[in-house]
Amino acid sequence: MTTDSQDWLQERLRFHGIKSNILARNLVSEFVGTFILCFIGLGIVVQFHIGGGATTQWIGVNIGWGFAIMFAVMATARMSGGQLNPAVSLLLWSMGHLKLAWVLAYSLAQTAGAFVAAALIYAYYYERFDAFDGGNRTVLGANGTAGCFSSYPHPDIGYWGPYIDQIVGTAILGFFLCVIIDERNQIPKVWHPMFFGFLIMMIGTGFGMNLGYPINPARDLGPRLFAYFVYGTGVFNSPYRGYWMAPAIAPFVGALVGGWLYHFALGMHNPDVVDDDDAPSDGHEKRQLLPTA
Amino acid sequence: MTTDSQDWLQERLRFHGIKSNILARNLVSEFVGTFILCFIGLGIVVQFHIGGGATTQWIGVNIGWGFAIMFAVMATARMSGGQLNPAVSLLLWSMGHLKLAWVLAYSLAQTAGAFVAAALIYAYYYERFDAFDGGNRTVLGANGTAGCFSSYPHPDIGYWGPYIDQIVGTAILGFFLCVIIDERNQIPKVWHPMFFGFLIMMIGTGFGMNLGYPINPARDLGPRLFAYFVYGTGVFNSPYRGYWMAPAIAPFVGALVGGWLYHFALGMHNPDVVDDDDAPSDGHEKRQLLPTA
Amino acid sequence: MTTDSQDWLQERLRFHGIKSNILARNLVSEFVGTFILCFIGLGIVVQFHIGGGATTQWIGVNIGWGFAIMFAVMATARMSGGQLNPAVSLLLWSMGHLKLAWVLAYSLAQTAGAFVAAALIYAYYYERFDAFDGGNRTVLGANGTAGCFSSYPHPDIGYWGPYIDQIVGTAILGFFLCVIIDERNQIPKVWHPMFFGFLIMMIGTGFGMNLGYPINPARDLGPRLFAYFVYGTGVFNSPYRGYWMAPAIAPFVGALVGGWLYHFALGMHNPDVVDDDDAPSDGHEKRQLLPTA
Amino acid sequence: MTTDSQDWLQERLRFHGIKSNILARNLVSEFVGTFILCFIGLGIVVQFHIGGGATTQWIGVNIGWGFAIMFAVMATARMSGGQLNPAVSLLLWSMGHLKLAWVLAYSLAQTAGAFVAAALIYAYYYERFDAFDGGNRTVLGANGTAGCFSSYPHPDIGYWGPYIDQIVGTAILGFFLCVIIDERNQIPKVWHPMFFGFLIMMIGTGFGMNLGYPINPARDLGPRLFAYFVYGTGVFNSPYRGYWMAPAIAPFVGALVGGWLYHFALGMHNPDVVDDDDAPSDGHEKRQLLPTA
Repeated sequence: MTTDSQDWLQERLRFHGIKSNILARNLVSEFVGTFILCFIGLGIVVQFHIGGGATTQWIGVNIGWGFAIMFAVMATARMSGGQLNPAVSLLLWSMGHLKLAWVLAYSLAQTAGAFVAAALIYAYYYERFDAFDGGNRTVLGANGTAGCFSSYPHPDIGYWGPYIDQIVGTAILGFFLCVIIDERNQIPKVWHPMFFGFLIMMIGTGFGMNLGYPINPARDLGPRLFAYFVYGTGVFNSPYRGYWMAPAIAPFVGALVGGWLYHFALGMHNPDVVDDDDAPSDGHEKRQLLPTA
Repeated sequence: MTTDSQDWLQERLRFHGIKSNILARNLVSEFVGTFILCFIGLGIVVQFHIGGGATTQWIGVNIGWGFAIMFAVMATARMSGGQLNPAVSLLLWSMGHLKLAWVLAYSLAQTAGAFVAAALIYAYYYERFDAFDGGNRTVLGANGTAGCFSSYPHPDIGYWGPYIDQIVGTAILGFFLCVIIDERNQIPKVWHPMFFGFLIMMIGTGFGMNLGYPINPARDLGPRLFAYFVYGTGVFNSPYRGYWMAPAIAPFVGALVGGWLYHFALGMHNPDVVDDDDAPSDGHEKRQLLPTA
Repeated sequence: MTTDSQDWLQERLRFHGIKSNILARNLVSEFVGTFILCFIGLGIVVQFHIGGGATTQWIGVNIGWGFAIMFAVMATARMSGGQLNPAVSLLLWSMGHLKLAWVLAYSLAQTAGAFVAAALIYAYYYERFDAFDGGNRTVLGANGTAGCFSSYPHPDIGYWGPYIDQIVGTAILGFFLCVIIDERNQIPKVWHPMFFGFLIMMIGTGFGMNLGYPINPARDLGPRLFAYFVYGTGVFNSPYRGYWMAPAIAPFVGALVGGWLYHFALGMHNPDVVDDDDAPSDGHEKRQLLPTA
Repeated sequence: MTTDSQDWLQERLRFHGIKSNILARNLVSEFVGTFILCFIGLGIVVQFHIGGGATTQWIGVNIGWGFAIMFAVMATARMSGGQLNPAVSLLLWSMGHLKLAWVLAYSLAQTAGAFVAAALIYAYYYERFDAFDGGNRTVLGANGTAGCFSSYPHPDIGYWGPYIDQIVGTAILGFFLCVIIDERNQIPKVWHPMFFGFLIMMIGTGFGMNLGYPINPARDLGPRLFAYFVYGTGVFNSPYRGYWMAPAIAPFVGALVGGWLYHFALGMHNPDVVDDDDAPSDGHEKRQLLPTA
């Protein structure tokens, strides 16, 4: 694919690009990034729930969502950093990367992006929804389709289960996010999006059977707000009253717990990077009895 | 694998390589690249449709097609850029990378490559087709095999569904193609083919249940033209009259929509690359209270 | 994700980081690393055993565990080297990388980390365990769940089968671990964790049907010790008396066999790295008849 | 994993390493590399055929074999180039990389390595074979297990089908092998093993339903020779007399066809690498109307 120059229309566009108002530019980035992430991600969930038969595989959900994260972060990394998740924004605030007011603004932009994504994916797959449930939208049950938009808990877990689930899932996200971005671990920036994608693939294989690993308040609440217009108040109160709060609140706790667990348990001991890369950093003994040939 | 030198026959061959006529060289590249892409890709689809049992898995289709894109682009990137898709060529024209007349020529070469691929894959798997349908070729239905060559829509979507489906799928392709090749995103060229492959894997997990994500007029029309000689006019008019136009036309719209959506929504705000890589580009506050040890 | 600076709290924390006592720091690293590895890995196994239906796929276990290894090694590589496995530590001791006393200390830290991981994953998925077996914990059988914590052999293998299985599986791990870390093979350090992850994915596809590829005494014994408090002595004596010793002992043999097999079979012949990278190292003839254009 | 120094035993070993007799060293490398490749690969096939139930997935075969190729090439690349396949050796001979006598010697070493791998994997999984067929080894049929060692064709293809199948499969291997190692395509050597692995994953998703993609005479014939001692002459004459020759001979043709197809169709036109990397190599027009900001 030819990448040698930027074309005239692209260049003309750039005269109108937001350059001076960093906050405005980053809000656009977070809105668009979360929109495209959730549009693709919800498409994957719809194919899983409604597709039926051969195109329905959990590993496809894992791999698809992982690459969706990778590409959405890649698209927005140089502007807003590709946070795309209010819980991640809060964690980065706690580490001094952005103001609390920005976290609020980012969260709104992210949730709005997810809302629009839900509306468009619903339009896109509208005929398939109709064919699946005969036009009779219900939240849960055999023909329930609200799970295409937001999480609903597995029947085997109780009231606090979803909170615990989301704290744990998002803690794993926060922990390894801090591993990846800790400059002492020397992971080149160009590969951060791919590792975030692999991280999401991993979480889905082990922490997805309770709620389906939303671990992102914007990704869960934005589509749920849209689903309200389709399914009514059941989307907030199924399977129990106020369930919607679990995936909307718990990830904030989880991200902080996981991110700072890294810093307390590992990061604070992580040795500084020294120029002499040959210096052993692990303190392991070398029994060098014979000279190297 | 030893790569240290080029051998004499290869060198002798290079005296006959097309060096001065860039268009001719690029047409060879697009023809061969699309041929090899579609030969492998159609092999994957045949294994999925006809293989039956253990070797038939949707995730295998996703991963196989992704790597097929990766390798076909890798093989042709240094000549024609590895476009292998008329919709991609049109998008690149709109961005000033090649002339409109070249887009036409490329499209013909790509479609011809896909046609030849279909003929050869049919010969290769001929016995398996015969065993599957008893030698009675039909387009659709329980023993229908035309889906091995080109897309046919899921019965649950109506007349315009395929158009919408292909616009959306190709828009995602065009959007992230522009993310990957935007030099401001600093993705090394050597990795572009792999990311294009991951992109196709992702699209297949979420946007494949309506038509099977052709998102490439050459990949769909070329094999359909070949299938005409096997199945007759049904390949153009199943399940409804003129269906074949949807995957042949809609991807052009989708690629333009998706590609320029990137430039309007994100690319125009994307900051220039500065040499000082330590400069923060995201405008995020740094509360650096303590000196770095 | 913004990585440009380290924040004040992180910097303040670093005043308390363990810098001078390398052993203590490395024990923390091995404890935390094995904890997070096993917490994620056991979550994957629970989802596989108890999840049922759509979220239960062996390939998900392979990919999930592979990425869990990758991320856990990535998080701890710069401190203790991310060994996270007593058999790996013993192999590295035999290669002169650390003292035998340290191997003992590392092994205890690793096993303790795995024990804590088992306790926490049990708490996390407690409701799912209860729903699965009606609160009646049994080691094996249709409702048995002890396999979520540690390995139990397939009924088709006899007394020594598990020993052979673990020697073979860990030998593959040890062999390729030595391939990856042999500096003569010139694999950049930043990619070591990913290749370790791919290695684990590979082993699971071909050597997982007997015991489920624990190939790590800490990963097997730590959770088994925790499981003792849930299931009783059956976890040590199922399906036969003293079974627990196989995955606790055999990996030490396997890692030594595999690692040194590499050095005896390949490593000792591996040519030194010379600065002139153009020099052919494979001794293959070059019939360079025509000059390169 | 600590890699900072080479240990005394490793260094002492290196005094005995084969340094002067390049052919002997490369034969060791090819023997060991093909052994480890086939040991792992046959383990994967056994798990697929005999494992049954949850651990049996075609995608696992694809991914496992791909990584097996990757690691086996990685382990031997700096000595013999990691050819591990007589058809690949012949292709490299035709490109002037090694003498024809060496191809013969390599082929013997590779086949011997595969033979030993088959013997050891049989010992390793012996109990599982017995449990599967009640100790009554048969080549084909419901309880047939010879397919764990070598390929047998799908019943739907005729006499020449296996020849065509192996020519096509190995041609794809040879074509992209030449893409990867063509220095003009500028793919860093450190990534060659990974791309070879991805290549094998791809081939398995689309060209595996006829014979199971052996595409390697050593990998097929070596284990078949071992299987003769277990199953008798049926391994050479099932399902038809002399079937064994197809996967033993056809890959040589396929590799030459595919490799030289690349050079004739693409490689001879591939432009030379120039130092000025900014120079456009694709001949695409640039309509640079506005200066770059």
